[in-house]
Amino acid sequence: MKKLIVSLLAFGAASISFSAAAQFAKPEDAVKYRKAAFTVTGTHFGRLGAMAQGKVPFDAKVAAENAEIVADMAKLPWQAFGEGTETADTKAKPEIWKQSAKFKELGDKLQSESVKLAAAAKSGKEDAFKAAFTATAGTCKSCHDDFRSK
Amino acid sequence: MKKLIVSLLAFGAASISFSAAAQFAKPEDAVKYRKAAFTVTGTHFGRLGAMAQGKVPFDAKVAAENAEIVADMAKLPWQAFGEGTETADTKAKPEIWKQSAKFKELGDKLQSESVKLAAAAKSGKEDAFKAAFTATAGTCKSCHDDFRSK
Repeated sequence: MKKLIVSLLAFGAASISFSAAAQFAKPEDAVKYRKAAFTVTGTHFGRLGAMAQGKVPFDAKVAAENAEIVADMAKLPWQAFGEGTETADTKAKPEIWKQSAKFKELGDKLQSESVKLAAAAKSGKEDAFKAAFTATAGTCKSCHDDFRSK
Repeated sequence: MKKLIVSLLAFGAASISFSAAAQFAKPEDAVKYRKAAFTVTGTHFGRLGAMAQGKVPFDAKVAAENAEIVADMAKLPWQAFGEGTETADTKAKPEIWKQSAKFKELGDKLQSESVKLAAAAKSGKEDAFKAAFTATAGTCKSCHDDFRSK
Protein backbone atom coordinates (compact mmCIF):
# COMPACT_ATOMS: atom_id res chain seq x y z
CA MET A 1 0.00 0.00 0.00
CA LYS A 2 2.79 2.43 0.84
CA LYS A 3 4.28 1.80 -2.58
CA LEU A 4 0.94 2.53 -4.17
CA ILE A 5 0.68 5.83 -2.36
CA VAL A 6 4.23 6.82 -3.17
CA SER A 7 3.81 6.03 -6.85
CA LEU A 8 0.46 7.73 -6.86
CA LEU A 9 1.90 10.87 -5.39
CA ALA A 10 4.63 10.79 -7.99
CA PHE A 11 1.84 11.09 -10.57
CA GLY A 12 0.57 14.24 -8.91
CA ALA A 13 1.15 17.36 -10.93
CA ALA A 14 1.78 19.50 -7.93
CA SER A 15 3.46 19.74 -4.61
CA ILE A 16 3.18 17.99 -1.31
CA SER A 17 2.97 19.86 1.91
CA PHE A 18 5.32 18.74 4.64
CA SER A 19 4.44 21.42 7.12
CA ALA A 20 1.87 24.10 7.61
CA ALA A 21 4.54 26.75 7.02
CA ALA A 22 5.74 25.27 3.75
CA GLN A 23 2.61 24.50 1.79
CA PHE A 24 4.65 24.15 -1.37
CA ALA A 25 7.91 22.26 -1.71
CA LYS A 26 9.30 24.67 -4.33
CA PRO A 27 8.43 28.21 -5.43
CA GLU A 28 7.68 26.85 -8.93
CA ASP A 29 5.04 24.58 -7.44
CA ALA A 30 3.34 27.54 -5.81
CA VAL A 31 3.41 29.48 -9.06
CA LYS A 32 2.05 26.53 -11.04
CA TYR A 33 -0.69 26.08 -8.47
CA ARG A 34 -1.82 29.69 -8.42
CA LYS A 35 -1.78 29.91 -12.23
CA ALA A 36 -3.87 26.74 -12.34
CA ALA A 37 -6.34 28.12 -9.82
CA PHE A 38 -6.72 31.31 -11.86
CA THR A 39 -7.14 29.31 -15.09
CA VAL A 40 -10.05 27.41 -13.60
CA THR A 41 -11.49 30.60 -12.12
CA GLY A 42 -11.13 32.45 -15.41
CA THR A 43 -12.88 29.73 -17.37
CA HIS A 44 -15.97 29.84 -15.22
CA PHE A 45 -15.86 33.60 -14.86
CA GLY A 46 -15.67 33.84 -18.64
CA ARG A 47 -18.88 31.83 -18.94
CA LEU A 48 -20.55 34.25 -16.56
CA GLY A 49 -19.19 37.12 -18.62
CA ALA A 50 -20.73 35.69 -21.78
CA MET A 51 -24.10 35.80 -20.03
CA ALA A 52 -23.54 39.22 -18.51
CA GLN A 53 -22.68 40.52 -21.98
CA GLY A 54 -25.70 38.86 -23.56
CA LYS A 55 -23.59 36.60 -25.79
CA VAL A 56 -25.45 33.64 -24.36
CA PRO A 57 -28.91 33.83 -22.79
CA PHE A 58 -29.01 34.22 -19.01
CA ASP A 59 -29.69 30.88 -17.35
CA ALA A 60 -29.92 31.17 -13.57
CA LYS A 61 -28.99 27.53 -12.94
CA VAL A 62 -25.93 27.56 -15.18
CA ALA A 63 -24.91 30.98 -13.87
CA ALA A 64 -25.24 29.81 -10.27
CA GLU A 65 -23.16 26.68 -10.94
CA ASN A 66 -20.39 28.69 -12.55
CA ALA A 67 -20.51 31.42 -9.92
CA GLU A 68 -20.28 28.86 -7.11
CA ILE A 69 -17.17 27.42 -8.70
CA VAL A 70 -15.73 30.93 -8.95
CA ALA A 71 -16.56 31.54 -5.29
CA ASP A 72 -14.87 28.28 -4.28
CA MET A 73 -11.84 28.92 -6.47
CA ALA A 74 -11.48 32.49 -5.23
CA LYS A 75 -10.37 31.14 -1.85
CA LEU A 76 -7.40 29.24 -3.21
CA PRO A 77 -4.64 31.15 -4.98
CA TRP A 78 -3.61 33.48 -2.15
CA GLN A 79 -1.82 30.76 -0.17
CA ALA A 80 0.53 30.43 -3.14
CA PHE A 81 1.85 33.99 -3.06
CA GLY A 82 4.32 33.32 -0.28
CA GLU A 83 7.72 34.91 0.06
CA GLY A 84 10.17 33.45 -2.42
CA THR A 85 7.60 32.96 -5.15
CA GLU A 86 8.20 36.35 -6.75
CA THR A 87 11.23 35.30 -8.76
CA ALA A 88 9.70 32.33 -10.58
CA ASP A 89 8.19 32.47 -14.08
CA THR A 90 5.34 34.71 -13.13
CA LYS A 91 3.38 37.79 -14.14
CA ALA A 92 3.02 38.64 -10.47
CA LYS A 93 4.48 42.09 -9.83
CA PRO A 94 6.85 42.74 -6.91
CA GLU A 95 4.18 45.14 -5.61
CA ILE A 96 2.30 42.08 -4.31
CA TRP A 97 4.91 41.67 -1.61
CA LYS A 98 5.56 45.39 -1.14
CA GLN A 99 1.88 46.27 -0.74
CA SER A 100 0.71 43.04 0.76
CA ALA A 101 -2.15 44.59 2.75
CA LYS A 102 -3.64 46.07 -0.40
CA PHE A 103 -3.18 42.78 -2.27
CA LYS A 104 -4.86 40.88 0.54
CA GLU A 105 -7.71 43.37 0.60
CA LEU A 106 -8.39 42.77 -3.10
CA GLY A 107 -8.16 39.01 -2.65
CA ASP A 108 -10.66 39.20 0.20
CA LYS A 109 -12.89 41.44 -1.88
CA LEU A 110 -12.91 38.94 -4.73
CA GLN A 111 -14.00 36.25 -2.32
CA SER A 112 -16.86 38.27 -0.84
CA GLU A 113 -18.01 39.57 -4.22
CA SER A 114 -18.00 36.15 -5.84
CA VAL A 115 -20.21 34.87 -3.01
CA LYS A 116 -22.62 37.74 -3.73
CA LEU A 117 -22.40 36.94 -7.44
CA ALA A 118 -23.40 33.33 -6.80
CA ALA A 119 -26.34 34.51 -4.68
CA ALA A 120 -27.43 36.96 -7.38
CA ALA A 121 -27.21 34.26 -10.04
CA LYS A 122 -29.27 31.90 -7.89
CA SER A 123 -31.94 34.57 -7.38
CA GLY A 124 -32.69 34.36 -11.09
CA LYS A 125 -32.77 38.15 -11.36
CA GLU A 126 -30.77 39.00 -14.44
CA ASP A 127 -30.23 42.64 -13.50
CA ALA A 128 -28.89 41.69 -10.07
CA PHE A 129 -26.64 39.12 -11.71
CA LYS A 130 -25.26 41.64 -14.19
CA ALA A 131 -24.61 44.20 -11.45
CA ALA A 132 -22.84 41.61 -9.29
CA PHE A 133 -20.84 40.42 -12.26
CA THR A 134 -19.68 43.97 -12.99
CA ALA A 135 -18.66 44.48 -9.37
CA THR A 136 -16.69 41.23 -9.33
CA ALA A 137 -15.11 41.94 -12.71
CA GLY A 138 -14.04 45.35 -11.43
CA THR A 139 -12.22 43.71 -8.54
CA CYS A 140 -10.42 41.32 -10.89
CA LYS A 141 -9.39 44.30 -12.99
CA SER A 142 -8.21 46.42 -10.05
CA CYS A 143 -5.95 43.63 -8.90
CA HIS A 144 -4.67 42.85 -12.39
CA ASP A 145 -3.96 46.54 -13.03
CA ASP A 146 -1.89 46.94 -9.89
CA PHE A 147 -0.38 43.55 -9.34
CA ARG A 148 -0.14 41.68 -12.63
CA SER A 149 2.25 42.37 -15.48
CA LYS A 150 0.78 42.62 -18.96
CA MET B 1 -19.02 49.23 -18.56
CA LYS B 2 -19.02 47.04 -21.66
CA LYS B 3 -15.44 48.07 -22.32
CA LEU B 4 -14.48 47.15 -18.79
CA ILE B 5 -16.01 43.69 -19.18
CA VAL B 6 -14.40 43.12 -22.58
CA SER B 7 -10.98 44.13 -21.33
CA LEU B 8 -11.51 42.10 -18.19
CA LEU B 9 -12.37 39.01 -20.17
CA ALA B 10 -9.28 39.53 -22.28
CA PHE B 11 -7.32 39.19 -19.05
CA GLY B 12 -8.88 35.79 -18.41
CA ALA B 13 -6.45 32.94 -18.80
CA ALA B 14 -9.06 30.60 -20.17
CA SER B 15 -11.95 30.28 -22.53
CA ILE B 16 -15.38 31.79 -22.82
CA SER B 17 -18.39 29.65 -23.43
CA PHE B 18 -20.66 30.77 -26.23
CA SER B 19 -22.99 27.82 -26.10
CA ALA B 20 -23.74 24.89 -23.88
CA ALA B 21 -22.36 22.55 -26.56
CA ALA B 22 -19.09 24.41 -26.91
CA GLN B 23 -17.89 25.02 -23.38
CA PHE B 24 -14.43 25.80 -24.68
CA ALA B 25 -13.64 28.00 -27.65
CA LYS B 26 -10.58 25.95 -28.66
CA PRO B 27 -9.35 22.43 -27.84
CA GLU B 28 -6.21 23.98 -26.29
CA ASP B 29 -8.40 25.87 -23.86
CA ALA B 30 -10.05 22.64 -22.75
CA VAL B 31 -6.67 20.97 -22.29
CA LYS B 32 -5.30 23.92 -20.35
CA TYR B 33 -8.40 23.92 -18.17
CA ARG B 34 -8.32 20.22 -17.33
CA LYS B 35 -4.58 20.30 -16.61
CA ALA B 36 -5.18 23.25 -14.30
CA ALA B 37 -8.02 21.46 -12.52
CA PHE B 38 -5.80 18.41 -11.97
CA THR B 39 -2.92 20.59 -10.75
CA VAL B 40 -5.13 22.10 -8.06
CA THR B 41 -6.56 18.68 -7.21
CA GLY B 42 -3.11 17.12 -7.03
CA THR B 43 -1.80 19.81 -4.71
CA HIS B 44 -4.51 19.25 -2.15
CA PHE B 45 -4.48 15.49 -2.61
CA GLY B 46 -0.74 15.56 -2.04
CA ARG B 47 -1.28 17.29 1.29
CA LEU B 48 -3.69 14.55 2.27
CA GLY B 49 -1.14 11.98 1.15
CA ALA B 50 1.50 13.49 3.39
CA MET B 51 -0.86 12.95 6.32
CA ALA B 52 -1.90 9.48 5.20
CA GLN B 53 1.78 8.55 4.97
CA GLY B 54 2.55 10.04 8.37
CA LYS B 55 4.93 12.63 6.95
CA VAL B 56 2.87 15.29 8.69
CA PRO B 57 0.67 14.68 11.73
CA PHE B 58 -2.99 13.97 11.03
CA ASP B 59 -5.07 17.09 11.59
CA ALA B 60 -8.77 16.49 11.02
CA LYS B 61 -9.54 20.13 10.26
CA VAL B 62 -6.75 20.57 7.73
CA ALA B 63 -7.50 17.18 6.21
CA ALA B 64 -11.19 18.03 5.87
CA GLU B 65 -10.41 21.38 4.24
CA ASN B 66 -8.09 19.77 1.71
CA ALA B 67 -10.43 16.85 1.07
CA GLU B 68 -13.36 19.20 0.47
CA ILE B 69 -11.32 21.05 -2.13
CA VAL B 70 -10.46 17.71 -3.76
CA ALA B 71 -14.14 16.75 -3.75
CA ASP B 72 -15.10 20.07 -5.36
CA MET B 73 -12.30 19.89 -7.91
CA ALA B 74 -13.10 16.28 -8.81
CA LYS B 75 -16.30 17.48 -10.46
CA LEU B 76 -14.56 19.75 -12.93
CA PRO B 77 -12.10 18.23 -15.41
CA TRP B 78 -14.45 15.81 -17.19
CA GLN B 79 -16.27 18.51 -19.12
CA ALA B 80 -12.94 19.30 -20.78
CA PHE B 81 -12.42 15.87 -22.36
CA GLY B 82 -14.72 16.57 -25.29
CA GLU B 83 -14.20 15.27 -28.80
CA GLY B 84 -11.43 17.14 -30.59
CA THR B 85 -9.33 17.62 -27.46
CA GLU B 86 -7.34 14.41 -27.98
CA THR B 87 -4.87 15.92 -30.45
CA ALA B 88 -3.71 18.85 -28.35
CA ASP B 89 -0.59 18.85 -26.17
CA THR B 90 -1.84 16.28 -23.75
CA LYS B 91 -0.96 13.11 -21.86
CA ALA B 92 -4.53 11.94 -22.34
CA LYS B 93 -4.53 8.60 -24.17
CA PRO B 94 -6.86 7.95 -27.12
CA GLU B 95 -8.44 5.23 -24.96
CA ILE B 96 -10.36 7.98 -23.17
CA TRP B 97 -12.53 8.42 -26.24
CA LYS B 98 -12.51 4.75 -27.24
CA GLN B 99 -13.53 3.51 -23.79
CA SER B 100 -15.53 6.50 -22.73
CA ALA B 101 -17.91 4.54 -20.46
CA LYS B 102 -14.97 3.18 -18.46
CA PHE B 103 -13.37 6.61 -18.28
CA LYS B 104 -16.62 8.15 -17.08
CA GLU B 105 -17.02 5.40 -14.50
CA LEU B 106 -13.60 6.19 -13.03
CA GLY B 107 -14.34 9.91 -13.07
CA ASP B 108 -17.60 9.28 -11.22
CA LYS B 109 -15.81 6.99 -8.78
CA LEU B 110 -13.26 9.70 -7.99
CA GLN B 111 -16.08 12.08 -7.21
CA SER B 112 -17.90 9.68 -4.89
CA GLU B 113 -14.72 8.56 -3.17
CA SER B 114 -13.46 12.07 -2.59
CA VAL B 115 -16.77 12.92 -0.93
CA LYS B 116 -16.28 9.90 1.36
CA LEU B 117 -12.70 11.00 1.97
CA ALA B 118 -13.86 14.44 3.09
CA ALA B 119 -16.40 12.83 5.43
CA ALA B 120 -13.76 10.50 6.86
CA ALA B 121 -11.37 13.42 7.40
CA LYS B 122 -14.11 15.37 9.15
CA SER B 123 -14.88 12.44 11.45
CA GLY B 124 -11.43 12.87 12.95
CA LYS B 125 -10.83 9.12 12.81
CA GLU B 126 -7.35 8.70 11.43
CA ASP B 127 -7.81 5.06 10.43
CA ALA B 128 -10.97 5.85 8.49
CA PHE B 129 -9.17 8.76 6.84
CA LYS B 130 -6.24 6.58 5.80
CA ALA B 131 -8.54 3.89 4.40
CA ALA B 132 -10.54 6.45 2.43
CA PHE B 133 -7.34 8.05 1.18
CA THR B 134 -6.05 4.70 -0.07
CA ALA B 135 -9.34 4.02 -1.86
CA THR B 136 -9.30 7.41 -3.53
CA ALA B 137 -5.62 7.12 -4.43
CA GLY B 138 -6.33 3.76 -6.01
CA THR B 139 -8.95 5.33 -8.24
CA CYS B 140 -6.53 8.05 -9.33
CA LYS B 141 -4.00 5.36 -10.12
CA SER B 142 -6.43 3.14 -12.05
CA CYS B 143 -7.36 6.01 -14.29
CA HIS B 144 -3.77 7.18 -14.76
CA ASP B 145 -2.68 3.62 -15.59
CA ASP B 146 -5.29 3.20 -18.31
CA PHE B 147 -5.85 6.68 -19.60
CA ARG B 148 -2.76 8.80 -19.03
CA SER B 149 0.56 8.55 -20.85
CA LYS B 150 3.69 8.45 -18.75
